[in-house]
Amino acid sequence: MNVKTVLILLVLALATIFALVCVLLTRGRAPGTCQHQPLEQEDSDDGQSLVFADLTPEEMVQVVRYLQGAVLYFGNQPDPNVTEYVVGPLPTPAYHRDVTVQKYGGKVPYHRRPVTGKEYMDINTLIQRELGKAPRFLAACCESNGTDLAILTTAPRGFKSGDRTTWFVLFHGVAGTGYYLSPVGLEVLVEHGDLVASHWQLRQVFYNGRYFSSMRDLEDAFVANLLEVVRIEKPWAEAVLGSMRLRHQPGSPGLLQYEPQGPRYSIRDNRVTFQGWSITFGMNPNSGPRLFDIRYRGERIIYELSLQEALALYGSNCPGGMSTRYLDGSFGIGRFAYELVRGLDCPYTATYMDRHYLAESETPKTNQNSLCIFEHDAALPLRRHFSDSHSFYYGGLRKNTLVIRTVSTLINYDYIWDFMFHGSGAVEVRVHATGYISSSFLHGQGTNYGNRVGPHTLGTMHLHHIHYKVDLDVDGQLNSLETQDMEYELVKDPWSMQNTIERPYLRRERLEREDEAAFPLNGPMPRYVSFASPKPNKWGHPRSYRIQISSFAGEHLPTSSPMERSISWGRYQLAVTRRKEEEPTSSSIYNQNDPWTPTVAFADFIDNETITSKDLVAWISVGFLHVPHAEDVPNTVTVGNGVGFFLRPYNYFNEDPSVDSPDSVYFSGEEDAGACGANPLACLPAAAACAPHLPPFRCGGFLHRAGGPCPAVRPQGSLGYCRKGAGSCLQPRCAEPAVCGQDSALDKTSACSAPWQTAQGQRFKDLDLNFLVEADK
Amino acid sequence: MNVKTVLILLVLALATIFALVCVLLTRGRAPGTCQHQPLEQEDSDDGQSLVFADLTPEEMVQVVRYLQGAVLYFGNQPDPNVTEYVVGPLPTPAYHRDVTVQKYGGKVPYHRRPVTGKEYMDINTLIQRELGKAPRFLAACCESNGTDLAILTTAPRGFKSGDRTTWFVLFHGVAGTGYYLSPVGLEVLVEHGDLVASHWQLRQVFYNGRYFSSMRDLEDAFVANLLEVVRIEKPWAEAVLGSMRLRHQPGSPGLLQYEPQGPRYSIRDNRVTFQGWSITFGMNPNSGPRLFDIRYRGERIIYELSLQEALALYGSNCPGGMSTRYLDGSFGIGRFAYELVRGLDCPYTATYMDRHYLAESETPKTNQNSLCIFEHDAALPLRRHFSDSHSFYYGGLRKNTLVIRTVSTLINYDYIWDFMFHGSGAVEVRVHATGYISSSFLHGQGTNYGNRVGPHTLGTMHLHHIHYKVDLDVDGQLNSLETQDMEYELVKDPWSMQNTIERPYLRRERLEREDEAAFPLNGPMPRYVSFASPKPNKWGHPRSYRIQISSFAGEHLPTSSPMERSISWGRYQLAVTRRKEEEPTSSSIYNQNDPWTPTVAFADFIDNETITSKDLVAWISVGFLHVPHAEDVPNTVTVGNGVGFFLRPYNYFNEDPSVDSPDSVYFSGEEDAGACGANPLACLPAAAACAPHLPPFRCGGFLHRAGGPCPAVRPQGSLGYCRKGAGSCLQPRCAEPAVCGQDSALDKTSACSAPWQTAQGQRFKDLDLNFLVEADK
Repeated sequence: MNVKTVLILLVLALATIFALVCVLLTRGRAPGTCQHQPLEQEDSDDGQSLVFADLTPEEMVQVVRYLQGAVLYFGNQPDPNVTEYVVGPLPTPAYHRDVTVQKYGGKVPYHRRPVTGKEYMDINTLIQRELGKAPRFLAACCESNGTDLAILTTAPRGFKSGDRTTWFVLFHGVAGTGYYLSPVGLEVLVEHGDLVASHWQLRQVFYNGRYFSSMRDLEDAFVANLLEVVRIEKPWAEAVLGSMRLRHQPGSPGLLQYEPQGPRYSIRDNRVTFQGWSITFGMNPNSGPRLFDIRYRGERIIYELSLQEALALYGSNCPGGMSTRYLDGSFGIGRFAYELVRGLDCPYTATYMDRHYLAESETPKTNQNSLCIFEHDAALPLRRHFSDSHSFYYGGLRKNTLVIRTVSTLINYDYIWDFMFHGSGAVEVRVHATGYISSSFLHGQGTNYGNRVGPHTLGTMHLHHIHYKVDLDVDGQLNSLETQDMEYELVKDPWSMQNTIERPYLRRERLEREDEAAFPLNGPMPRYVSFASPKPNKWGHPRSYRIQISSFAGEHLPTSSPMERSISWGRYQLAVTRRKEEEPTSSSIYNQNDPWTPTVAFADFIDNETITSKDLVAWISVGFLHVPHAEDVPNTVTVGNGVGFFLRPYNYFNEDPSVDSPDSVYFSGEEDAGACGANPLACLPAAAACAPHLPPFRCGGFLHRAGGPCPAVRPQGSLGYCRKGAGSCLQPRCAEPAVCGQDSALDKTSACSAPWQTAQGQRFKDLDLNFLVEADK
Repeated sequence: MNVKTVLILLVLALATIFALVCVLLTRGRAPGTCQHQPLEQEDSDDGQSLVFADLTPEEMVQVVRYLQGAVLYFGNQPDPNVTEYVVGPLPTPAYHRDVTVQKYGGKVPYHRRPVTGKEYMDINTLIQRELGKAPRFLAACCESNGTDLAILTTAPRGFKSGDRTTWFVLFHGVAGTGYYLSPVGLEVLVEHGDLVASHWQLRQVFYNGRYFSSMRDLEDAFVANLLEVVRIEKPWAEAVLGSMRLRHQPGSPGLLQYEPQGPRYSIRDNRVTFQGWSITFGMNPNSGPRLFDIRYRGERIIYELSLQEALALYGSNCPGGMSTRYLDGSFGIGRFAYELVRGLDCPYTATYMDRHYLAESETPKTNQNSLCIFEHDAALPLRRHFSDSHSFYYGGLRKNTLVIRTVSTLINYDYIWDFMFHGSGAVEVRVHATGYISSSFLHGQGTNYGNRVGPHTLGTMHLHHIHYKVDLDVDGQLNSLETQDMEYELVKDPWSMQNTIERPYLRRERLEREDEAAFPLNGPMPRYVSFASPKPNKWGHPRSYRIQISSFAGEHLPTSSPMERSISWGRYQLAVTRRKEEEPTSSSIYNQNDPWTPTVAFADFIDNETITSKDLVAWISVGFLHVPHAEDVPNTVTVGNGVGFFLRPYNYFNEDPSVDSPDSVYFSGEEDAGACGANPLACLPAAAACAPHLPPFRCGGFLHRAGGPCPAVRPQGSLGYCRKGAGSCLQPRCAEPAVCGQDSALDKTSACSAPWQTAQGQRFKDLDLNFLVEADK
């Protein structure tokens, strides 16, 4: 190689370097990916919040193991019943005690137990067998041999205590869509109370407005041409009523949220902190989401905030529809809180948490990503004022809220449970209903009970009623209930006595007794109702939190109904009672299947006790009347179908705590609003100039889903609470109570090692082990 | 240079090239800036929406010029009055006609006119002069000579028609913060009804619970030591009650929103389109935001949706507070809708629009960036269902909403006016109150009228009442009003006749007359109230829109009050009347200063006319009782202080229109939820991986703000509507009406060329030209 060649190469190399540097300088201007900043720890967690924690899978296993090891013995019992045990202490249980009488004031008869998956399967087998007796009818009405029909349970199951006779409604089952909108007109009544499943019977058949005593009778009527049959084609998956398959190509991604420096909340174990808030969260497999020890700026405001029950009560001219009064706690509001879909159920960047349950199995199960926590920008000022007169300034704060959410799918409909924590010290609790409506086969005067929403589908009117427990502790446990409202007084004008003025004044009252503090559902309620501490704020007013309810509830049931007492919490939009260990919940999983002798009757809590300077609980019900209409297909929308309540500081502070927010904005005419140092809004263009990094989309929420990174399984349950009182919260925990189905012929082995798997013979096959595990101080 | 050296250089150059390429490949991975995609035009705008447009500044000038050119002549009139003219057609006005009698059924006496800025200035001069008569008292009570006190008007102004006697409340004025929280205890009553300002008088003085006939009397009492003086230090700007100056360094930016491919709505002129919605927007300088011709999927649903009036009614034991019943339309709800602060009042990336007004001047003025439009992610599913039984699938849709917002600052408080358009075809209207509370000086039994919120400050209880006009046209103009609600019927069980069941059924009713359709404020209302078309949907139900109200309103006033008729819209949460050209608005700017003879009395609209198959208007009032508490300082928060209503499709469609949304998500167990082609959520990580580009923060909203890129000016006003009827909307527009203060001695020149500037002598100085400009077909 001669020098000239090498020199040419060198020149070319230098030119390449120059070109590369130019490219580099240009491309170097591209923004980087957002870098998350570590969050300053808001407070030191000494582990106290763990006392409120749901049991871990390991702890559940310990409890099961304890119950299995020489602890429980079941002999013949003359009176089959449900027994609940407290087991403790954790992590190594050493004792158990029967708490049934203490909790429920007596034994819990076995017929009150919830229906298990196994029991439903046995019923389905029976129904399938019976359907086989009317092949020509089924072929004519439904293009079916019966095996492809979906079967929907109703509840309650009869007319009096001990009854276990249920209407089941049959639908065209179409894979990939909600069958709830495709009733075929057929409903069957099954008596399944006997402990021996082979004794169960189909008692009645309903078709298109007529009742028959058996499927064979129905078949006979059909064959004899004495039956008016509505021939319904088997629906085609893409076109079926209520299909949500995409009709269009996905559009532009639209609006997205991101956190350029990472989330501003922090989660440790079962506790989340955010801008002064500290909340311990958990999930009861039956009654659903529950929060404990809600503190703001270090002060406890709420000891317990928990969902208690959800009632859905229907009207119809079909037997299944008209008898339906679902108490979802019995089905499992927490247990059926499935995986949340990232970017739709919660923001894409939310934090998703697993929940673990133990129910109908001795093995804990996991509901992956079934609770989400995120900061939400309401796109609304929390407060603002623009002054363009006298002096010139602007002050304000965005409404950024911490949201804790879980969504329960209870067969057809989905409840979205939200708990929101505002920068003003307010807590907002909200539930939205969505999912599929339930429906009846349209016949006769069906539209007296709803609207027609499909060729043969009556969207049946119903009520949603939701009950919450709010154990407020406002500046200590001893609180009173204060009300304020306006009235007008006609007064002479002080400066012009010949004239009068209608002047509003404030009527303040302290309610003395529980009966005064129980506000009927659609009755008047003072506009301001507050939990008041005896201690005043800086300005001399009792430190208080106000309860503000937003609801459109219908009438829950006439009190003359023999089952009304089981949902007597529905009588009151608000009832305030003294807090008692013996009144931990307003409903019970046993109420659904024996509402005629309710295991827990909330109305009994209201017995006119004194409520001044006492530890008080607010019981709040919200709900709405839902008359389904065409737009409920495919799913009810959340717009307008949200109800809830606020807990708002009312003279609790000396000023709005949000003035201390680092997000506050203030600038005046004299200052430069555009300077990032003085105005956080002016910093946004720089802070925002990075590219968010979203994790790949994943969802593994289906039971039988093939592959996928995070297969979820059917949720199972646990229930826990900590005895109230700061001292006791530091004790080791124990699990309580374990509920074992008991039966006379059940021995130790079959009782606690999965009897539903090993039980021999028909007699035991419906036994269930429903572990309800609680933490005891 | 020898070969070796060159070779070494060449090797070094190649190594450099290698290194640069490596760097380039690494840095090349940095994401780019988000590129906005052009939006597909949803529909062709043929300019029809312009017929609903607010007048442009040029058109305002044309109207003023027309009025100035040989058109208006004012001679001596025995009875001074306000006259409203229609002027047209635009763009070159050629005619005018007096519409006063047609609109108001008679002449409008001059004493009903709103108080102008000039009149307030003259009153302030008078008050300052009077304050000078009590120097020793002022020094003692307030460390003031009077000139640094802020003066707040109240309204109405007397006890009977013709009165113009107003209480003015005095506050410590502190620059950069709301003086409304710092009353000094002094209030003065000024009679300013005479057309000659020099005849005005101070009639009464109130201080700390006592009344005096003059400032001199007060001074005498003070000097004679007969006055209990509460000495209040002059507040210091940083520490004054209600200061919003930052107390902490700004924190992390937190959550941000962005639109990686740009906004999905499009705005042309006065019309915005978004996912099937089309809305024409505008602003009335008096009554505030107004929307016209709201269409969804091409069909008109709402002809007019407009704010009508906002009432704030106070209680207090101070004379100013107890007499306050502000009717904000008279002050100017639209006129005082100032610039919105980007990133706080609306999302940073929202679209901000200017509004133009003509009021108290012949020159149009601009309120820059005073209306914003944005897509909002509610972080909530619009609908969703997760199926983990029978078949496995998930379907859902995010709740992304188009929001049109404006915020009015009416002296101390700020109303946030939201109009929201959902993917379900529902419209949501919402108002939040924030800003400063008003207050009285705390003395005596003050806390009967509110809470103490500062050393000497009583947060005075008050009502907010807001009135809306909703001219729904559901599938045509001819609609009827239908109600539905539930009742229980006790029936024998069809399958078990010895048993009974309480069954809910639907009670449907069609209301025949206006009186039946006027629902008193706190009376019962059917849970479902709908505007129904005679045409059925696919399932046979009348195509309808349902009205659902969410409100916590207090009692507006006893009907025995002599001024109640002026706010008689407050009697009804909902009233449905026949639409009439003669009943365009439920209130009037003239009601504030003569509420005893209301220019518009809404109750008169309800005269039992037939309302079946007629063009109907729904008049909706919402509001809440506000008892200010410590947390209202510095500003009332929006949490819990929002009220509004929904307009929801109710059997209007055949199914929920949101199934067609390109944002819909659906995947089933069999499909791959993680594939971007099938599931839009799986596309998000890629779509989101670009850096948003936000424009620099700017705000120029203060009148006297020095420099700044976009100085706003005091808003001025226009009012417009288009005569109903598709045909007439295509006509050239005209401006109506121009309101001229008239006076006997006023000649043409002084009448229309800014008389408040050129008027000679005291007699004319309070004259105002308040141009109210409307578009007439």
